[in-house]
Amino acid sequence: MADTFGFQLLAQDGLARRGEVTTPRGVIRTPAFMPVGTVATVKAMYLDQVRQAGADILLANTYHLMLRPGAERVAKLGGLHNFMRWDGPILTDSGGFQVMSLSKIRKITEEGAQFQSHLDGSPHMLSPERSIEIQCLLGADIQMQFDECIELPAAPKEVERAMQLSLRWAERSKRAFDDQVRAGGATHGQALFAIVQGGVDPDMRRRSAETLVDMEFPGYAIGGLAVGEGHEAMIATLAETLPFLPSTKPRYLMGVGTPLDLIEAVRLGVDMFDCVMPTRNGRHGYAFTSAGPLNMRNARHAEDMSPIDAESSCPAAREYSRAYVHHLMKSGESLGAMILSWINTTFYQDLMAAMRSAIEQHRFDAWAEETKARIIAPPKSAQSVM
Amino acid sequence: MADTFGFQLLAQDGLARRGEVTTPRGVIRTPAFMPVGTVATVKAMYLDQVRQAGADILLANTYHLMLRPGAERVAKLGGLHNFMRWDGPILTDSGGFQVMSLSKIRKITEEGAQFQSHLDGSPHMLSPERSIEIQCLLGADIQMQFDECIELPAAPKEVERAMQLSLRWAERSKRAFDDQVRAGGATHGQALFAIVQGGVDPDMRRRSAETLVDMEFPGYAIGGLAVGEGHEAMIATLAETLPFLPSTKPRYLMGVGTPLDLIEAVRLGVDMFDCVMPTRNGRHGYAFTSAGPLNMRNARHAEDMSPIDAESSCPAAREYSRAYVHHLMKSGESLGAMILSWINTTFYQDLMAAMRSAIEQHRFDAWAEETKARIIAPPKSAQSVM
Repeated sequence: MADTFGFQLLAQDGLARRGEVTTPRGVIRTPAFMPVGTVATVKAMYLDQVRQAGADILLANTYHLMLRPGAERVAKLGGLHNFMRWDGPILTDSGGFQVMSLSKIRKITEEGAQFQSHLDGSPHMLSPERSIEIQCLLGADIQMQFDECIELPAAPKEVERAMQLSLRWAERSKRAFDDQVRAGGATHGQALFAIVQGGVDPDMRRRSAETLVDMEFPGYAIGGLAVGEGHEAMIATLAETLPFLPSTKPRYLMGVGTPLDLIEAVRLGVDMFDCVMPTRNGRHGYAFTSAGPLNMRNARHAEDMSPIDAESSCPAAREYSRAYVHHLMKSGESLGAMILSWINTTFYQDLMAAMRSAIEQHRFDAWAEETKARIIAPPKSAQSVM
Repeated sequence: MADTFGFQLLAQDGLARRGEVTTPRGVIRTPAFMPVGTVATVKAMYLDQVRQAGADILLANTYHLMLRPGAERVAKLGGLHNFMRWDGPILTDSGGFQVMSLSKIRKITEEGAQFQSHLDGSPHMLSPERSIEIQCLLGADIQMQFDECIELPAAPKEVERAMQLSLRWAERSKRAFDDQVRAGGATHGQALFAIVQGGVDPDMRRRSAETLVDMEFPGYAIGGLAVGEGHEAMIATLAETLPFLPSTKPRYLMGVGTPLDLIEAVRLGVDMFDCVMPTRNGRHGYAFTSAGPLNMRNARHAEDMSPIDAESSCPAAREYSRAYVHHLMKSGESLGAMILSWINTTFYQDLMAAMRSAIEQHRFDAWAEETKARIIAPPKSAQSVM
C-alpha cells in the first residue's frame, strides 16, 4: 500500500490513458467508474456485490451525509469507511452540486452557500472551509474543492461569475485542506482535487484549467457538465479542456454518464467517472446488457425465460430470467431493483475493464467502434426477439 | 429423494414433535417455518440467503400469483420452482384467505368466491376446483383445500356456516386434486392438506377436524386463527383441536406467528408454520435478536456501533452496526430492509432448529422457558443499553 497519494500512467493509446491511482487504502485502476453511495450505501446492493463487480473506489455525497447522519456523528463512529464497511478508497464530492440541485432555498455569497435541508427545511451553510472539514470528518480519501455548479444553458456572464467564484473557492479549499493536514485532520495519503468550470465555453474552460493547474492540485475534475448540454456539447467541451490539464495527474469527469459518454470521454483522456445511472436505471427497470439496453417492464419480456444477459460476468444476469425480472418489476418487488442494480453495476465495471484492456493492447478505437455498435445501438431485430 | 409424499415422526417430547416431511423435492425438517414468498419472491431477499438461513420449504400465494403473472403463464414458463429458481418444496395456500382480506368486492356462494382483483378491479372466480387447478399449474408440492376464512370475532352461526361450507369445499378440493393426479396434472409426490375451521369454538373445531380426518388427507392445517382472537385464545383453541388430528400426519398452523406463538404451538404438537412477520417486520425496521426485539428506527441506536446480534448465525447480524442500520432505516434505504429481512428470516430458522434440537434432547420445556425469558421479554436494562 502506498503511504501517499499518487498517479502512474501505465499505457496510452491515442489520448486514452491506462493508469493507476495509488492511495493508502488501495489502488484504483483507471479508467475507473465509481459507483455512487449517496448516503453511505450503493442503493439496493450489498457492498460484496459492488466489490465483486470490480469497483476499486466508491463515491459518497457530502451534502446528504452532512444532513443525515451528520459529519461529526460519522467521525465519532470511526469515519465513513468504518460506518458503511468499505475498506477501499472513497471519494466525496464537495456538496456544491447538491446545494444547487436539491436544497430548497439557497443564497450564494462570496463566503459560501446558505441553504435549507431538503429533508426538514433546517438551515445550513457550506463554505470551502466547512466542506473540507466535513470531507475530513468523513475521512474521504479523495476530496473535492467546493464549487458553484450552475445549470446550463446560462448567460455567459453568469457562467463566468460562477467560474471565477469557484476559482477563489478552489484556493480557499486548498488552504483549508493543507491546514487539515497540518492539524492532523487529513494525511498526505488523502488528496484534494480541483474542479474546472466554465460551462461549454472553451475560453472560460481554458482559463479555469490554467488557473487551477497553477495552484498544483494532485488531480483535476471537469465539473458542470452533464447538466443539460447534451452528449455532443459535452464531448466538444472536454476536447477543448483536457489539453490544458497536466498528463501526470488524474482527470475526473463528474456525474457522467451513459456507456457512450464513458467511451468517448476515455478516448479523449478522462481517467475517472461517477454516475447514479447503473443503480437508478436498475430501480426503474432498465438493464444494461452486452447486446444493448433492455426495458424489463416491457411486456415482450413477460414469457421470455432466457437470461437477462448470458454474456455478463454478473451471476444475476446469467441466472434470472427476463420473465421473472419483468414480473418483479411489474409487481414492485424490491428483488427486481436489487437484481438490476447488481447487473448494471457489473456492466459498468466490465465496460471499464474492457477499456483498460483495449488501451493496454493499443486497440481502443477498434474496440470502441465494435462495442458501441453492439451495446448502444443494437439492431431492432435483436431488441424484439422474445 | 422420496417418490411419494410422507411424514415420519423422529422424536417426541411431551406433545412436541420432531419429524420429517418427505417430498420428491426434498425433506422438510419439522417443526418447520416456511418463509413467505407471496408473489414468487421472499421480499428483499436473495433465495440463497433464505436457503442458507435453513429454510427447507417456501410458501407462495395462489391469490397473488393467479392475478399476476397468472397461473397459466407460470405453467407455460415451467412452473413456479423454475420461475422463481427454488428447487426445494413449495406450499401454496388456496387463495381463500386473501379473497377475504385483500379483494375489493366479493360474493361467496356454494360454488365458490367471486371477487375483484385488488390490482385492477378485474373480476375473478375461485372455487375448490379452480383453486386446485391453479395450485397444480403452479406445481405446488403441498397444496391447500379451498376454504372460507372469516374474521374473528364473528357470530357462532356465521362461524358454523363458514365451517360447514369449508367442509363441503374440502371434499370438492380432494376430488379435484385426485382428478388432477389421474389426469397427470399432479403426482403422488404432491399432497393436498385439509384446513380445520370453526373459530374459537372447541365443539366446532372438533367436528371440523373429525369430518376432515374421515376424508383422509395427508396433512391437516389449522386455519382461521391469528385473525384477531389473541395469543391466549389461539393457544386454547389449538389445545382443543390438535387431539382430534392423527399423530401420523403433519399439522400446519396457518399464518402464525410471533416467536412466542411458535414456541407454544410447537409445545402442543404443531409441525409447520408460515408468516410474513420476519420480512414485514424487517421492512418496518424491527430486528429479532437473541436478546429480544429491537426497533432499529429508535434514536438510541444512532451512535451504537455494536452489531445487531453478535450471537446470530446470520452474517448481517454480526457485521452491520446498529448505528448503520438505524441510518439506513431513517434514510429509507432499501439496504436496511434487505439486512433486517435477512436477519429476521435467519432468526426464525434458528428458532425452529433450536426447537427441533430441544425436542430431540427431550428438554423442550426447559429450553422454552429459558428462551422465552431471553428473546421475548428481555430486561429493560438490556433494551436500553446503548
